[in-house]
Amino acid sequence: MQRLSRLRDAIAPPAADRATQAQRHLDSLTKPPGSLGRLEELARRLVEIRGGAAPAVERPVIFTFAGDHGVVEEGVSAYPQVVTAQMVENFLRGGAAVNVLARQAGAQVVVADLGVATPLSARAGLVSRRVADGTRNIARGPAMTREQAVAAIEVGAELAEAAVADGADLLGLGEMGIGNTTAASAVTAAITGAPVEAVTGRGTGVDDATWRHKVEVVGRALARNRPDRADGLDVLASVGGFEIGGLAGVALAGAAHRVPVALDGFVATAAGLIAVAIAPAARHFLFASHRSVEPGHAAALGHLGLEPYLDLGMRLGEGTGAALFVHLARAAARIYTEMATFKSAGVDERCEA
Amino acid sequence: MQRLSRLRDAIAPPAADRATQAQRHLDSLTKPPGSLGRLEELARRLVEIRGGAAPAVERPVIFTFAGDHGVVEEGVSAYPQVVTAQMVENFLRGGAAVNVLARQAGAQVVVADLGVATPLSARAGLVSRRVADGTRNIARGPAMTREQAVAAIEVGAELAEAAVADGADLLGLGEMGIGNTTAASAVTAAITGAPVEAVTGRGTGVDDATWRHKVEVVGRALARNRPDRADGLDVLASVGGFEIGGLAGVALAGAAHRVPVALDGFVATAAGLIAVAIAPAARHFLFASHRSVEPGHAAALGHLGLEPYLDLGMRLGEGTGAALFVHLARAAARIYTEMATFKSAGVDERCEA
Repeated sequence: MQRLSRLRDAIAPPAADRATQAQRHLDSLTKPPGSLGRLEELARRLVEIRGGAAPAVERPVIFTFAGDHGVVEEGVSAYPQVVTAQMVENFLRGGAAVNVLARQAGAQVVVADLGVATPLSARAGLVSRRVADGTRNIARGPAMTREQAVAAIEVGAELAEAAVADGADLLGLGEMGIGNTTAASAVTAAITGAPVEAVTGRGTGVDDATWRHKVEVVGRALARNRPDRADGLDVLASVGGFEIGGLAGVALAGAAHRVPVALDGFVATAAGLIAVAIAPAARHFLFASHRSVEPGHAAALGHLGLEPYLDLGMRLGEGTGAALFVHLARAAARIYTEMATFKSAGVDERCEA
Repeated sequence: MQRLSRLRDAIAPPAADRATQAQRHLDSLTKPPGSLGRLEELARRLVEIRGGAAPAVERPVIFTFAGDHGVVEEGVSAYPQVVTAQMVENFLRGGAAVNVLARQAGAQVVVADLGVATPLSARAGLVSRRVADGTRNIARGPAMTREQAVAAIEVGAELAEAAVADGADLLGLGEMGIGNTTAASAVTAAITGAPVEAVTGRGTGVDDATWRHKVEVVGRALARNRPDRADGLDVLASVGGFEIGGLAGVALAGAAHRVPVALDGFVATAAGLIAVAIAPAARHFLFASHRSVEPGHAAALGHLGLEPYLDLGMRLGEGTGAALFVHLARAAARIYTEMATFKSAGVDERCEA
């Protein structure tokens, strides 16, 4: 609990005047004011987060955390549970989508086992920080104890703090866990108050009957556990997952160290909801990389007050949206630092005000 | 006219069965089918264009063509005409937004003067292929002769064919020309049939009164010149621009050589409209990199049947949207070629159909 308390105490909103200063610089660059749209907003936010310093997105790290979910015994997923472990092996060999996209973006991928049910043998590249052999079935009781919730968050925070100490300048969230959209739906319904049907989607692609069953299971999980929406740890312990807790820890560490945090899809954004329930000012450090097809994502992003930068109909997770977002964040940072000003380039400004 | 005739004759739709074959490969990769959304669609289109070959976006080239517009004497822009030449100097020094974004994307920028009014001194990096010292005022008569329209297209096509011979695997369109959103509005209204008010925007940022005047000027240009929408050369000669013609030539060369062409914003898309009016099958080789704030862009994209990949509130031109799109096209290509399959990675497939 010590690390979590320390991080929570360190999280404060950035000074608001830095954004005005950043916009003044952006308006001096050789382009009509505002003509780079959301890249300018992104640059402003990066400068604000860094307290006015020039932004850089040159050492991004994506945290792809894996965990299993006891709720799969209710039959809520299109894939067998063993796929969580098989995909971790795929991450370690570099063959998954997040590996491809992170390589392209020059981002490191930290693959960590926070609680995969199937045993994974130790090897280079696998960070083994298991809290338990998967969560318990949330339809029948809490996913984990409150102590396990704290442990999961602190694992993520520790890995993120190590990356920041090593120079990471953007932290991306990613995940793998068969059944974890069910947990994310429960977390999202609990924290946002949105109806279960509105925040429950098809995950990796379940059919109509399974979707109706999944809605019923999420409803049962909430009725059974009655998570306290004002208490992020209680929501995580009641209906969350170990990988979700770990990612909430990454988000809290990013916020505490004033390093931007890129959410990914629905499950990673559920981790963002938990982080912000724990420390509301963490919101200022979060970026919505993309809009997922999962219907609950909109409710979660709305609750966080975030507008996604990409809308490509994706629903894969792993950190794939965060990896694509790296290009946009880097573009914003380089526009801010590399473009000529009207003055330096000898370009005339507007005739009119 | 010889080059243009040759290109037009070479443009044909890609074989449709390649897309099915590409989707079959995408569905064998370690991700739920369709879960990468528009990246999968992008990959399918790239494979289709290359006749089934593995897609690659490793040597993109952005053509940033400059030209001036006689219509500026009507007072339709917020910037003086000399800014066209000043921005060309900025491109050559690498300080403009397109330079920053192209460097990031590993794209070459070809800066060509197709008809800038202010004299530019010869220097390394400047391709000087002037058709005339800017167009004539379209509110009073045609922008250029039909011979000049052909010449502008052939300059662009020649530069694009040279790049393709040199290994370019994606051609991006970009432009600079004070007054050119007025020309693009006239081209878009002429070809799509949309009302002038609906396709005329604020360009680099004119005020309300100037916007109303700009609408009136576009209306006058169309009434005066009566361009034949079925004849792309006539539209270009009547109300276009030299840089717009050059970019239409790049698009036609890309289509003829089966190399994907990334449109940029409103002005570059007007060039796409002209290319497709000249050779309808060229449409299959065009990609809408982003959605511009310019209101006429939607009508132009709708006419071309294209849906943009990015929507970032940008309205700068230069090729900035095309440069950002390079990352997405490259992501799609690498997903296609680098991801592991379920079989190779030993990952279980879905339990259900």
